[in-house]
Amino acid sequence: MIPMTIKAKDSRTLARVTEFTLRGVKIETPQFMPVGTRGAVKTLDSADLHELGFPIVLGNTYHLYLKPESDVLKEHGGLHKFTGFQGAMLTDSGGFQIFSLEGMRKLDAHGVTFRSVYDGSEHRFEPKGVVQIQRAIGADIMMCLDECPPGDAPRAYIEKSMQLTHRWAEQCVEEFLSDPGDQHLFGIFQGGVHLDLREQSLKFIQDLPFSGIAIGGLSVGESREDMGRVLTHVGPLLDPARPHYLMGVGTPHDFLTAIECGVDLFDCVMPTRVARHGRAFTENGQINLLNAKYRTQLAAIDDACDCRVCQNYSASYVHHLLRMKETTGQRLLTWHNLAFFKRFLDAARESIMTSQFPEFRDHWRQRL
Amino acid sequence: MIPMTIKAKDSRTLARVTEFTLRGVKIETPQFMPVGTRGAVKTLDSADLHELGFPIVLGNTYHLYLKPESDVLKEHGGLHKFTGFQGAMLTDSGGFQIFSLEGMRKLDAHGVTFRSVYDGSEHRFEPKGVVQIQRAIGADIMMCLDECPPGDAPRAYIEKSMQLTHRWAEQCVEEFLSDPGDQHLFGIFQGGVHLDLREQSLKFIQDLPFSGIAIGGLSVGESREDMGRVLTHVGPLLDPARPHYLMGVGTPHDFLTAIECGVDLFDCVMPTRVARHGRAFTENGQINLLNAKYRTQLAAIDDACDCRVCQNYSASYVHHLLRMKETTGQRLLTWHNLAFFKRFLDAARESIMTSQFPEFRDHWRQRL
Repeated sequence: MIPMTIKAKDSRTLARVTEFTLRGVKIETPQFMPVGTRGAVKTLDSADLHELGFPIVLGNTYHLYLKPESDVLKEHGGLHKFTGFQGAMLTDSGGFQIFSLEGMRKLDAHGVTFRSVYDGSEHRFEPKGVVQIQRAIGADIMMCLDECPPGDAPRAYIEKSMQLTHRWAEQCVEEFLSDPGDQHLFGIFQGGVHLDLREQSLKFIQDLPFSGIAIGGLSVGESREDMGRVLTHVGPLLDPARPHYLMGVGTPHDFLTAIECGVDLFDCVMPTRVARHGRAFTENGQINLLNAKYRTQLAAIDDACDCRVCQNYSASYVHHLLRMKETTGQRLLTWHNLAFFKRFLDAARESIMTSQFPEFRDHWRQRL
Repeated sequence: MIPMTIKAKDSRTLARVTEFTLRGVKIETPQFMPVGTRGAVKTLDSADLHELGFPIVLGNTYHLYLKPESDVLKEHGGLHKFTGFQGAMLTDSGGFQIFSLEGMRKLDAHGVTFRSVYDGSEHRFEPKGVVQIQRAIGADIMMCLDECPPGDAPRAYIEKSMQLTHRWAEQCVEEFLSDPGDQHLFGIFQGGVHLDLREQSLKFIQDLPFSGIAIGGLSVGESREDMGRVLTHVGPLLDPARPHYLMGVGTPHDFLTAIECGVDLFDCVMPTRVARHGRAFTENGQINLLNAKYRTQLAAIDDACDCRVCQNYSASYVHHLLRMKETTGQRLLTWHNLAFFKRFLDAARESIMTSQFPEFRDHWRQRL
């Protein structure tokens, strides 16, 4: 278990502020984890993440397992030393990539066989092996291998898949307990948009000695209403003594819904991915910097933003760089978007501390 | 003229340390200027250049004239404010790009007509117009429009082209003197590898009231010996009261030859361009980081390097990022290469100050 302090609980919703320490790094929630797919958040390095102020980032086990090969991480003494990141790290299980990337994959009761996106070579992930890989990577938080079915899968498939995820969860726990070290293992519950399955899956996962509980299988194609319905249903059932992590979500709008249902941790490629395509998050919603209207805008991307991009460069300059396909433009916009996400969740936390979360939520729901 | 102090003169060669101030920024020479083609040194922003310690960077008039369009720079109040760079800026004349880039161009006695690489639209550069463009860009140092013939052009062509460059130089001076402001104009002499033409061209250019003298038409395909021969010949003839700028050069090895012939300023895309292809400058020569031998190298790219990349990351990590085509890898290597160039010229300067330049030169000639 992660020793966790609940610093504040909203009286009108399930929103909360928690604090725990991983590797000597204090993590306050609600918190967003940038995604460093291949050992770097795209366009940034670890010094940048430190300057942006993120205490924890996410690494992709699928990619890190394939490249660099395991001897490289081992010789460095793990992903922290390899990337030079001083904060904490969470690795996903790789399952999501295997099930969502193009190419051959074959699922059976014991694991999944897949081909590498890099060279087509054949590999296999099984629950215990995935814990071993994440142990070698040196993640502070490891995730169970689960199957994450698409949002439009039939109920029968989701139910069967959920049972498989439960078997695998038990195997992951067994492997984890054989050598827990300083690491932690989070369980993932599934169940699609079916509230009874969600309830059943949450109970199963929560009965296992996981350090944290992750909500899987959302943001996989279902409607925003369905996501809200699931979160509203499971929120009150989540064990308050453990961190709650909503995987792969999302936008500031999604954060509001999730926080009010008691979610603590988020990760998403959105702020970094859309930046590379010219999209910026601002206090007035998303904008497309490639749009001709920004060609001559002397003001910053977001007037209200205190990030070093908005403090030093005009929207026009970033527009120019993006149009010229200069990676500096992608980098500046990545920086801004992550700073926006950081500030948004800092403000959400502050609103919970000062008993103003519902007002904060309503204010932003209207704005975004 | 730029008020310039000669801080040291080597007694055994023509090497010298000079100092002058542009826009309140102190520039000590020998000095290297990174190339910011489209308003940014590729993969970096202005804060990075400041942290790296470069007091002056180069912008490409050809690219900046085409994109962003002139109204954008004008609304910002020039390139400095557009890019946020606090140091000084030099712009080339655009001639080199026009003559070296693929695509239609037509030279006549009064200028050159060319098509944009961006949209194929037709444009024309004439000597006076190019000074006007650079004036609008707000460059601290502007360059004359010249014709830069290829290294293998016949002597008759080089001689004729040189005469054209001289006519254009006079026209540039006339336009410049109509409104000099705080800006400066450098002249460029040509003459290929023909020492008599070089002498003739240098005299012509030097007799005009330019703030600095640039050596054009080198590093355009001639042999290293030919470049050395030209520099050795013209070095003693360069007006000692003005800065000497060797355009488009080069490698640390080239710097040694040029500095001993009295060159003060350099620019080159090499350190940044080769970085994007995995090549690093080190104290032991160039290396290719993509090479399999760096896959597991825990040591930095260059053990002797104090740059923030070598202080924080293994060669193995940079190798991994480059192999994965992560722009973070290109950025880290760009940073390292520029830091290497900066340190190399800082050390050259220091060696001149302490009367050790010939020893410095011989030491590095052996190493590189």
